[in-house]
Amino acid sequence: MDRIAEFRKWKVQCLSKADLSRKGSVDEDVVELVQFLNMRDQFFTTSSCAGRILLLDGGINGFEVQKQNCCWLLVTHKPCVKDDVIVALKKANGDATLKFEPFVLHVQCRQLQDAQILHSVAIDSGFRNSGITVGKRGKTMLAVRSTHGLEVPLIHKGKLMVTEEYIDFLLNVANQKMEENKKRIERFYNCLQHALERETMTNLHPKIKEKNNSSYTYKKQRNQEKARSQCITKENVKELENDDDDVGINITIFPEDY
Amino acid sequence: MDRIAEFRKWKVQCLSKADLSRKGSVDEDVVELVQFLNMRDQFFTTSSCAGRILLLDGGINGFEVQKQNCCWLLVTHKPCVKDDVIVALKKANGDATLKFEPFVLHVQCRQLQDAQILHSVAIDSGFRNSGITVGKRGKTMLAVRSTHGLEVPLIHKGKLMVTEEYIDFLLNVANQKMEENKKRIERFYNCLQHALERETMTNLHPKIKEKNNSSYTYKKQRNQEKARSQCITKENVKELENDDDDVGINITIFPEDY
Repeated sequence: MDRIAEFRKWKVQCLSKADLSRKGSVDEDVVELVQFLNMRDQFFTTSSCAGRILLLDGGINGFEVQKQNCCWLLVTHKPCVKDDVIVALKKANGDATLKFEPFVLHVQCRQLQDAQILHSVAIDSGFRNSGITVGKRGKTMLAVRSTHGLEVPLIHKGKLMVTEEYIDFLLNVANQKMEENKKRIERFYNCLQHALERETMTNLHPKIKEKNNSSYTYKKQRNQEKARSQCITKENVKELENDDDDVGINITIFPEDY
Repeated sequence: MDRIAEFRKWKVQCLSKADLSRKGSVDEDVVELVQFLNMRDQFFTTSSCAGRILLLDGGINGFEVQKQNCCWLLVTHKPCVKDDVIVALKKANGDATLKFEPFVLHVQCRQLQDAQILHSVAIDSGFRNSGITVGKRGKTMLAVRSTHGLEVPLIHKGKLMVTEEYIDFLLNVANQKMEENKKRIERFYNCLQHALERETMTNLHPKIKEKNNSSYTYKKQRNQEKARSQCITKENVKELENDDDDVGINITIFPEDY
Protein backbone atom coordinates (compact mmCIF):
# COMPACT_ATOMS: atom_id res chain seq x y z
CA MET A 1 0.00 0.00 0.00
CA ASP A 2 1.43 3.43 -0.90
CA ARG A 3 2.06 6.13 1.73
CA ILE A 4 -1.03 8.19 0.87
CA ALA A 5 -3.37 5.18 0.98
CA GLU A 6 -1.78 4.09 4.26
CA PHE A 7 -2.26 7.59 5.72
CA ARG A 8 -5.94 7.54 4.68
CA LYS A 9 -6.35 4.16 6.39
CA TRP A 10 -4.74 5.48 9.62
CA LYS A 11 -6.97 8.55 9.49
CA VAL A 12 -10.18 6.53 9.15
CA GLN A 13 -9.08 4.15 11.94
CA CYS A 14 -8.13 7.01 14.30
CA LEU A 15 -11.21 9.19 13.74
CA SER A 16 -13.60 6.24 14.04
CA LYS A 17 -12.27 5.01 17.39
CA ALA A 18 -13.61 6.17 20.76
CA ASP A 19 -12.06 9.17 22.55
CA LEU A 20 -10.05 7.56 25.34
CA SER A 21 -9.55 10.75 27.33
CA ARG A 22 -10.98 11.10 30.85
CA LYS A 23 -13.21 13.87 29.51
CA GLY A 24 -14.22 11.79 26.48
CA SER A 25 -14.69 14.74 24.12
CA VAL A 26 -12.76 17.56 22.38
CA ASP A 27 -12.54 20.79 24.42
CA GLU A 28 -14.98 23.50 23.35
CA ASP A 29 -12.26 26.08 22.62
CA VAL A 30 -10.55 23.87 20.02
CA VAL A 31 -13.49 21.99 18.43
CA GLU A 32 -13.51 24.28 15.38
CA LEU A 33 -9.72 24.05 14.94
CA VAL A 34 -9.77 20.24 15.31
CA GLN A 35 -12.64 19.93 12.80
CA PHE A 36 -10.81 22.26 10.39
CA LEU A 37 -7.68 20.08 10.51
CA ASN A 38 -9.61 16.81 10.21
CA MET A 39 -11.41 18.12 7.11
CA ARG A 40 -8.04 18.53 5.35
CA ASP A 41 -6.74 15.49 3.42
CA GLN A 42 -3.18 15.93 4.74
CA PHE A 43 -3.97 16.02 8.48
CA PHE A 44 -5.83 14.38 11.33
CA THR A 45 -5.66 15.14 15.05
CA THR A 46 -4.84 12.36 17.53
CA SER A 47 -5.11 14.33 20.78
CA SER A 48 -5.84 17.82 22.05
CA CYS A 49 -6.37 19.89 25.19
CA ALA A 50 -7.40 23.55 24.97
CA GLY A 51 -5.58 24.36 28.21
CA ARG A 52 -6.68 23.80 31.79
CA ILE A 53 -6.16 24.60 35.45
CA LEU A 54 -5.59 21.36 37.36
CA LEU A 55 -5.39 20.59 41.06
CA LEU A 56 -3.69 17.23 41.53
CA ASP A 57 -3.48 15.18 44.71
CA GLY A 58 -0.77 12.62 45.30
CA GLY A 59 2.99 12.68 44.92
CA ILE A 60 5.59 10.19 43.83
CA ASN A 61 9.01 9.93 45.51
CA GLY A 62 7.92 13.00 47.41
CA PHE A 63 8.45 15.31 44.49
CA GLU A 64 6.77 14.39 41.26
CA VAL A 65 3.03 14.45 40.76
CA GLN A 66 1.91 11.01 39.61
CA LYS A 67 -0.58 11.92 36.92
CA GLN A 68 -1.55 8.41 35.93
CA ASN A 69 -2.94 7.32 39.29
CA CYS A 70 -3.31 10.60 41.11
CA CYS A 71 -6.62 12.09 42.09
CA TRP A 72 -7.83 15.17 40.23
CA LEU A 73 -9.22 17.44 42.91
CA LEU A 74 -10.18 20.05 40.35
CA VAL A 75 -9.95 20.46 36.58
CA THR A 76 -11.35 23.40 34.62
CA HIS A 77 -10.91 24.84 31.13
CA LYS A 78 -12.44 28.14 32.32
CA PRO A 79 -11.08 30.84 34.66
CA CYS A 80 -11.06 29.61 38.25
CA VAL A 81 -11.94 31.36 41.54
CA LYS A 82 -10.32 30.95 44.97
CA ASP A 83 -13.34 29.29 46.65
CA ASP A 84 -13.38 26.44 44.09
CA VAL A 85 -9.74 25.68 44.93
CA ILE A 86 -10.21 26.05 48.71
CA VAL A 87 -13.11 23.54 48.61
CA ALA A 88 -11.14 21.13 46.38
CA LEU A 89 -8.03 21.38 48.60
CA LYS A 90 -10.05 20.06 51.58
CA LYS A 91 -10.23 16.70 49.76
CA ALA A 92 -6.42 16.42 49.47
CA ASN A 93 -4.65 13.57 51.27
CA GLY A 94 -1.04 13.71 50.04
CA ASP A 95 0.88 16.46 48.25
CA ALA A 96 -1.42 18.67 46.16
CA THR A 97 -0.12 20.77 43.28
CA LEU A 98 -1.85 23.43 41.19
CA LYS A 99 -0.94 23.45 37.52
CA PHE A 100 -1.81 25.49 34.50
CA GLU A 101 -1.38 23.33 31.42
CA PRO A 102 -1.50 25.28 28.13
CA PHE A 103 -2.93 24.19 24.77
CA VAL A 104 -1.51 20.93 23.40
CA LEU A 105 -2.36 19.34 20.06
CA HIS A 106 -1.06 16.26 18.24
CA VAL A 107 -1.61 16.16 14.50
CA GLN A 108 -0.63 13.26 12.25
CA CYS A 109 0.53 14.57 8.86
CA ARG A 110 0.50 12.90 5.44
CA GLN A 111 4.09 13.89 4.74
CA LEU A 112 6.95 15.86 6.27
CA GLN A 113 6.17 18.94 4.19
CA ASP A 114 2.68 19.13 5.74
CA ALA A 115 4.17 18.89 9.23
CA GLN A 116 6.67 21.66 8.35
CA ILE A 117 3.86 24.08 7.40
CA LEU A 118 1.96 23.30 10.63
CA HIS A 119 5.17 23.62 12.67
CA SER A 120 6.00 26.99 11.16
CA VAL A 121 2.47 28.24 11.97
CA ALA A 122 2.77 26.92 15.56
CA ILE A 123 6.10 28.69 16.15
CA ASP A 124 4.80 31.94 14.62
CA SER A 125 1.76 31.74 16.92
CA GLY A 126 3.85 31.46 20.09
CA PHE A 127 3.94 27.68 20.61
CA ARG A 128 7.70 27.54 20.93
CA ASN A 129 7.97 23.96 22.23
CA SER A 130 6.27 22.48 19.16
CA GLY A 131 8.09 19.72 17.31
CA ILE A 132 7.85 16.99 14.69
CA THR A 133 8.12 13.25 15.32
CA VAL A 134 8.92 10.88 12.44
CA GLY A 135 8.44 7.21 13.33
CA LYS A 136 10.55 4.38 11.89
CA ARG A 137 7.72 3.44 9.52
CA GLY A 138 7.35 7.07 8.46
CA LYS A 139 4.38 8.15 10.61
CA THR A 140 4.80 11.91 10.83
CA MET A 141 3.32 13.74 13.80
CA LEU A 142 3.37 17.39 14.83
CA ALA A 143 3.01 18.23 18.52
CA VAL A 144 1.91 21.82 19.22
CA ARG A 145 3.27 22.80 22.65
CA SER A 146 3.72 25.99 24.62
CA THR A 147 6.29 27.00 27.24
CA HIS A 148 3.53 28.88 28.98
CA GLY A 149 2.82 26.79 32.12
CA LEU A 150 2.60 27.02 35.89
CA GLU A 151 3.31 24.35 38.52
CA VAL A 152 2.90 25.24 42.18
CA PRO A 153 2.98 22.78 45.10
CA LEU A 154 0.32 23.87 47.64
CA ILE A 155 -0.13 21.01 50.11
CA HIS A 156 2.63 18.86 51.62
CA LYS A 157 1.65 15.69 53.54
CA GLY A 158 -1.88 17.00 53.91
CA LYS A 159 -0.77 20.43 55.23
CA LEU A 160 -1.65 23.61 53.31
CA MET A 161 1.68 25.43 52.81
CA VAL A 162 0.31 28.80 51.57
CA THR A 163 -2.27 31.43 52.57
CA GLU A 164 -5.68 32.01 50.95
CA GLU A 165 -4.34 35.37 49.81
CA TYR A 166 -1.57 33.55 47.92
CA ILE A 167 -4.08 31.17 46.30
CA ASP A 168 -6.09 34.21 45.17
CA PHE A 169 -2.96 35.80 43.66
CA LEU A 170 -1.90 32.49 42.07
CA LEU A 171 -5.31 32.00 40.41
CA ASN A 172 -5.08 35.52 39.03
CA VAL A 173 -1.77 34.53 37.39
CA ALA A 174 -3.24 31.20 36.17
CA ASN A 175 -6.38 32.87 34.76
CA GLN A 176 -4.29 35.43 32.89
CA LYS A 177 -2.16 32.64 31.44
CA MET A 178 -5.36 30.91 30.33
CA GLU A 179 -6.53 34.13 28.66
CA GLU A 180 -3.20 34.50 26.83
CA ASN A 181 -3.34 30.81 25.89
CA LYS A 182 -6.77 31.36 24.32
CA LYS A 183 -5.41 34.29 22.26
CA ARG A 184 -2.60 32.05 20.98
CA ILE A 185 -5.05 29.31 19.96
CA GLU A 186 -7.01 31.92 17.96
CA ARG A 187 -3.76 33.21 16.43
CA PHE A 188 -2.74 29.64 15.54
CA TYR A 189 -6.12 28.93 13.89
CA ASN A 190 -6.01 32.23 11.99
CA CYS A 191 -2.42 31.73 10.77
CA LEU A 192 -3.16 28.10 9.87
CA GLN A 193 -6.12 29.01 7.67
CA HIS A 194 -4.07 31.57 5.76
CA ALA A 195 -0.99 29.35 5.46
CA LEU A 196 -3.03 26.46 4.02
CA GLU A 197 -5.00 28.82 1.76
CA ARG A 198 -1.71 30.25 0.44
CA GLU A 199 -0.32 26.73 -0.06
CA THR A 200 -3.43 25.67 -2.01
CA MET A 201 -3.16 28.78 -4.23
CA THR A 202 0.54 28.08 -4.85
CA ASN A 203 -0.19 24.45 -5.76
CA LEU A 204 -3.02 25.46 -8.08
CA HIS A 205 -0.95 28.25 -9.69
CA PRO A 206 2.75 27.44 -9.31
CA LYS A 207 3.65 30.66 -11.16
CA ILE A 208 1.28 32.78 -9.08
CA LYS A 209 4.07 35.11 -8.00
CA GLU A 210 4.79 36.14 -11.59
CA LYS A 211 1.08 36.69 -12.35
CA ASN A 212 1.03 40.33 -11.29
CA ASN A 213 -1.10 41.10 -14.31
CA SER A 214 -3.95 39.15 -12.77
CA SER A 215 -5.65 41.68 -10.51
CA TYR A 216 -7.66 38.90 -8.80
CA THR A 217 -4.60 36.85 -7.95
CA TYR A 218 -2.64 39.94 -6.97
CA LYS A 219 -5.38 41.20 -4.65
CA LYS A 220 -5.80 37.68 -3.22
CA GLN A 221 -2.07 37.47 -2.58
CA ARG A 222 -1.97 40.89 -0.95
CA ASN A 223 -4.83 39.91 1.36
CA GLN A 224 -3.10 36.69 2.23
CA GLU A 225 0.16 38.49 2.98
CA LYS A 226 -1.75 41.04 5.08
CA ALA A 227 -3.44 38.24 7.03
CA ARG A 228 -0.18 36.35 7.32
CA SER A 229 1.57 39.42 8.70
CA GLN A 230 -0.87 39.36 11.63
CA CYS A 231 0.98 36.28 12.85
CA ILE A 232 4.28 38.07 13.20
CA THR A 233 3.51 41.54 14.49
CA LYS A 234 6.06 43.28 16.73
CA GLU A 235 3.85 42.55 19.71
CA ASN A 236 3.81 38.85 18.92
CA VAL A 237 7.56 38.71 18.39
CA LYS A 238 7.95 40.32 21.82
CA GLU A 239 5.67 37.72 23.35
CA LEU A 240 7.61 34.93 21.65
CA GLU A 241 10.85 36.33 23.04
CA ASN A 242 9.39 36.60 26.52
CA ASP A 243 8.04 33.09 26.20
CA ASP A 244 11.31 31.61 25.10
CA ASP A 245 12.63 28.67 27.07
CA ASP A 246 16.18 29.18 25.89
CA VAL A 247 17.13 32.67 26.95
CA GLY A 248 20.35 32.49 28.90
CA ILE A 249 21.68 29.74 26.66
CA ASN A 250 23.14 30.02 23.18
CA ILE A 251 19.77 30.21 21.45
CA THR A 252 18.76 28.97 18.02
CA ILE A 253 15.95 30.74 16.14
CA PHE A 254 14.20 29.16 13.16
CA PRO A 255 13.27 32.01 10.80
CA GLU A 256 10.76 31.55 7.97
CA ASP A 257 13.48 31.24 5.31
CA TYR A 258 15.58 28.82 7.37
CA MET B 1 27.13 22.47 -2.69
CA ASP B 2 25.65 19.10 -1.66
CA ARG B 3 23.78 18.60 1.63
CA ILE B 4 26.66 16.91 3.43
CA ALA B 5 29.19 19.59 2.44
CA GLU B 6 26.71 22.29 3.44
CA PHE B 7 26.18 20.59 6.83
CA ARG B 8 29.96 20.46 7.38
CA LYS B 9 30.18 24.20 6.58
CA TRP B 10 27.36 25.00 9.05
CA LYS B 11 29.07 22.88 11.70
CA VAL B 12 32.43 24.63 11.33
CA GLN B 13 30.73 28.06 11.36
CA CYS B 14 28.65 27.23 14.44
CA LEU B 15 31.40 25.63 16.52
CA SER B 16 33.90 28.39 15.71
CA LYS B 17 31.66 31.27 16.79
CA ALA B 18 31.57 32.67 20.33
CA ASP B 19 29.12 31.30 22.92
CA LEU B 20 26.48 34.03 23.13
CA SER B 21 24.88 32.79 26.34
CA ARG B 22 24.89 34.92 29.49
CA LYS B 23 27.08 32.27 31.11
CA GLY B 24 29.36 32.11 28.07
CA SER B 25 30.24 28.42 28.46
CA VAL B 26 28.69 24.92 28.35
CA ASP B 27 27.33 23.70 31.73
CA GLU B 28 29.62 21.28 33.57
CA ASP B 29 27.02 18.48 33.72
CA VAL B 30 26.64 18.30 29.92
CA VAL B 31 30.17 19.13 28.68
CA GLU B 32 30.98 15.46 28.03
CA LEU B 33 27.66 14.85 26.23
CA VAL B 34 28.07 18.00 24.09
CA GLN B 35 31.65 17.04 23.19
CA PHE B 36 30.53 13.49 22.34
CA LEU B 37 27.86 14.82 19.94
CA ASN B 38 30.19 17.39 18.35
CA MET B 39 32.78 14.66 17.68
CA ARG B 40 30.24 12.77 15.52
CA ASP B 41 30.11 13.70 11.81
CA GLN B 42 26.29 13.73 11.75
CA PHE B 43 25.68 16.13 14.67
CA PHE B 44 26.60 19.43 16.25
CA THR B 45 25.02 21.17 19.24
CA THR B 46 23.76 24.76 18.90
CA SER B 47 22.58 25.32 22.49
CA SER B 48 22.35 23.58 25.83
CA CYS B 49 21.45 24.05 29.48
CA ALA B 50 22.01 21.25 32.01
CA GLY B 51 19.08 22.43 34.13
CA ARG B 52 18.88 25.27 36.63
CA ILE B 53 16.98 26.89 39.46
CA LEU B 54 16.21 30.49 38.55
CA LEU B 55 14.80 33.39 40.53
CA LEU B 56 13.51 36.03 38.12
CA ASP B 57 12.46 39.58 38.94
CA GLY B 58 10.09 41.55 36.75
CA GLY B 59 6.78 40.71 35.11
CA ILE B 60 5.13 41.55 31.81
CA ASN B 61 1.43 42.39 31.60
CA GLY B 62 1.38 41.53 35.28
CA PHE B 63 1.56 37.82 34.63
CA GLU B 64 4.36 36.66 32.41
CA VAL B 65 7.99 36.73 33.41
CA GLN B 66 9.92 38.76 30.84
CA LYS B 67 13.05 36.69 30.45
CA GLN B 68 14.78 38.89 27.90
CA ASN B 69 15.01 42.03 30.02
CA CYS B 70 14.22 40.75 33.48
CA CYS B 71 16.70 40.71 36.30
CA TRP B 72 18.07 37.34 37.39
CA LEU B 73 18.10 37.49 41.16
CA LEU B 74 19.56 34.01 41.40
CA VAL B 75 20.63 31.29 38.99
CA THR B 76 22.25 28.00 40.00
CA HIS B 77 22.90 24.64 38.34
CA LYS B 78 23.45 23.06 41.79
CA PRO B 79 21.00 22.31 44.61
CA CYS B 80 19.86 25.50 46.31
CA VAL B 81 19.27 26.35 50.01
CA LYS B 82 16.60 28.62 51.53
CA ASP B 83 19.00 31.34 52.72
CA ASP B 84 20.34 31.91 49.17
CA VAL B 85 16.77 32.55 47.97
CA ILE B 86 15.82 34.71 50.98
CA VAL B 87 18.87 36.95 50.35
CA ALA B 88 18.16 37.12 46.59
CA LEU B 89 14.44 37.92 47.16
CA LYS B 90 15.43 41.07 49.11
CA LYS B 91 16.69 42.53 45.80
CA ALA B 92 13.31 42.03 44.06
CA ASN B 93 11.40 45.11 42.85
CA GLY B 94 8.50 43.74 40.81
CA ASP B 95 7.00 40.24 40.63
CA ALA B 96 9.58 37.56 41.41
CA THR B 97 9.12 33.95 40.29
CA LEU B 98 11.11 30.84 41.16
CA LYS B 99 11.58 28.39 38.31
CA PHE B 100 13.20 25.03 37.84
CA GLU B 101 14.19 24.69 34.19
CA PRO B 102 15.21 21.14 33.21
CA PHE B 103 17.87 20.05 30.69
CA VAL B 104 17.45 21.47 27.19
CA LEU B 105 19.65 20.69 24.18
CA HIS B 106 19.49 21.71 20.52
CA VAL B 107 21.34 19.49 18.07
CA GLN B 108 21.62 20.15 14.33
CA CYS B 109 21.57 16.87 12.42
CA ARG B 110 23.02 16.00 9.01
CA GLN B 111 19.82 14.32 7.87
CA LEU B 112 16.37 13.40 9.16
CA GLN B 113 17.43 9.83 9.95
CA ASP B 114 20.10 11.13 12.38
CA ALA B 115 17.50 13.31 14.11
CA GLN B 116 15.13 10.31 14.38
CA ILE B 117 17.75 8.23 16.24
CA LEU B 118 18.48 11.12 18.63
CA HIS B 119 14.74 11.74 19.13
CA SER B 120 14.06 8.10 19.92
CA VAL B 121 16.88 8.13 22.52
CA ALA B 122 15.51 11.36 24.04
CA ILE B 123 11.97 9.94 24.40
CA ASP B 124 13.29 6.66 25.86
CA SER B 125 15.32 8.68 28.39
CA GLY B 126 12.30 10.60 29.66
CA PHE B 127 12.53 13.81 27.60
CA ARG B 128 8.94 13.62 26.41
CA ASN B 129 8.70 17.14 24.93
CA SER B 130 11.56 16.58 22.49
CA GLY B 131 10.90 17.25 18.82
CA ILE B 132 12.41 17.71 15.37
CA THR B 133 12.43 20.92 13.35
CA VAL B 134 13.01 20.82 9.59
CA GLY B 135 13.62 24.24 8.04
CA LYS B 136 12.59 25.22 4.52
CA ARG B 137 16.17 24.83 3.32
CA GLY B 138 16.40 21.43 4.99
CA LYS B 139 18.23 22.36 8.19
CA THR B 140 17.27 19.56 10.58
CA MET B 141 17.35 20.25 14.31
CA LEU B 142 16.45 18.10 17.30
CA ALA B 143 15.37 19.83 20.51
CA VAL B 144 15.66 17.69 23.66
CA ARG B 145 13.06 18.92 26.15
CA SER B 146 11.53 17.66 29.38
CA THR B 147 8.08 18.20 30.92
CA HIS B 148 9.79 18.24 34.27
CA GLY B 149 9.59 21.91 35.36
CA LEU B 150 8.41 24.15 38.17
CA GLU B 151 7.17 27.76 38.06
CA VAL B 152 6.13 29.44 41.29
CA PRO B 153 5.34 33.17 41.71
CA LEU B 154 6.75 34.29 45.10
CA ILE B 155 6.66 38.10 45.15
CA HIS B 156 3.85 40.33 43.85
CA LYS B 157 4.52 44.09 43.50
CA GLY B 158 7.48 43.81 45.88
CA LYS B 159 5.53 41.86 48.53
CA LEU B 160 6.58 38.33 49.53
CA MET B 161 3.44 36.18 49.16
CA VAL B 162 4.70 33.02 50.92
CA THR B 163 6.37 31.98 54.19
CA GLU B 164 10.03 30.98 54.67
CA GLU B 165 8.75 27.50 55.52
CA TYR B 166 7.11 27.32 52.08
CA ILE B 167 10.32 28.46 50.36
CA ASP B 168 12.17 25.70 52.21
CA PHE B 169 9.61 23.11 51.08
CA LEU B 170 9.64 24.48 47.50
CA LEU B 171 13.44 24.28 47.26
CA ASN B 172 13.26 20.68 48.46
CA VAL B 173 10.93 19.97 45.52
CA ALA B 174 13.16 21.93 43.10
CA ASN B 175 16.35 20.19 44.30
CA GLN B 176 14.76 16.77 43.90
CA LYS B 177 13.67 17.69 40.37
CA MET B 178 17.25 18.74 39.65
CA GLU B 179 18.51 15.39 40.96
CA GLU B 180 16.02 13.50 38.75
CA ASN B 181 16.97 15.75 35.80
CA LYS B 182 20.65 14.79 36.28
CA LYS B 183 19.73 11.08 36.22
CA ARG B 184 17.88 11.59 32.94
CA ILE B 185 20.86 13.37 31.36
CA GLU B 186 23.05 10.38 32.33
CA ARG B 187 20.42 7.99 30.95
CA PHE B 188 20.25 10.02 27.72
CA TYR B 189 24.06 9.98 27.33
CA ASN B 190 24.19 6.24 28.06
CA CYS B 191 21.37 5.36 25.64
CA LEU B 192 22.84 7.68 22.98
CA GLN B 193 26.25 6.00 23.09
CA HIS B 194 24.71 2.55 22.66
CA ALA B 195 22.25 3.65 19.95
CA LEU B 196 25.04 5.22 17.86
CA GLU B 197 27.34 2.25 18.50
CA ARG B 198 24.60 -0.12 17.31
CA GLU B 199 23.94 2.07 14.26
CA THR B 200 27.65 2.09 13.36
CA MET B 201 27.81 -1.70 13.70
CA THR B 202 24.72 -2.08 11.50
CA ASN B 203 26.17 0.24 8.85
CA LEU B 204 29.51 -1.59 8.88
CA HIS B 205 27.83 -5.03 8.77
CA PRO B 206 24.36 -4.69 7.23
CA LYS B 207 23.77 -8.42 7.71
CA ILE B 208 24.96 -8.35 11.30
CA LYS B 209 21.71 -9.85 12.57
CA GLU B 210 22.18 -13.01 10.51
CA LYS B 211 25.81 -13.37 11.60
CA ASN B 212 25.09 -15.47 14.65
CA ASN B 213 27.98 -17.71 13.73
CA SER B 214 30.36 -14.87 14.58
CA SER B 215 30.84 -15.15 18.34
CA TYR B 216 32.36 -11.64 18.49
CA THR B 217 29.45 -10.01 16.72
CA TYR B 218 26.95 -12.06 18.66
CA LYS B 219 28.51 -11.10 22.02
CA LYS B 220 28.74 -7.48 20.91
CA GLN B 221 25.08 -7.49 19.90
CA ARG B 222 24.01 -9.07 23.17
CA ASN B 223 25.95 -6.45 25.14
CA GLN B 224 24.38 -3.68 23.08
CA GLU B 225 20.90 -5.06 23.63
CA LYS B 226 21.63 -5.39 27.35
CA ALA B 227 22.82 -1.79 27.52
CA ARG B 228 19.92 -0.65 25.38
CA SER B 229 17.43 -2.33 27.70
CA GLN B 230 18.70 -0.08 30.49
CA CYS B 231 16.90 2.78 28.76
CA ILE B 232 13.50 1.18 29.06
CA THR B 233 13.37 -0.53 32.44
CA LYS B 234 10.04 -0.79 34.27
CA GLU B 235 11.12 2.01 36.58
CA ASN B 236 11.89 4.29 33.66
CA VAL B 237 8.61 3.55 31.95
CA LYS B 238 6.84 4.45 35.21
CA GLU B 239 8.75 7.73 35.35
CA LEU B 240 7.89 8.46 31.74
CA GLU B 241 4.23 7.86 32.50
CA ASN B 242 4.35 10.12 35.53
CA ASP B 243 6.13 12.70 33.47
CA ASP B 244 3.65 12.63 30.64
CA ASP B 245 2.10 15.91 29.63
CA ASP B 246 -0.83 14.34 27.86
CA VAL B 247 -2.59 12.25 30.46
CA GLY B 248 -6.25 13.18 30.52
CA ILE B 249 -6.30 13.72 26.78
CA ASN B 250 -6.47 11.12 24.05
CA ILE B 251 -2.78 10.30 24.14
CA THR B 252 -0.51 9.15 21.33
CA ILE B 253 2.52 7.02 22.15
CA PHE B 254 5.40 6.58 19.70
CA PRO B 255 6.73 3.03 20.22
CA GLU B 256 10.12 1.96 18.89
CA ASP B 257 8.62 0.14 15.89
CA TYR B 258 6.27 3.02 15.02
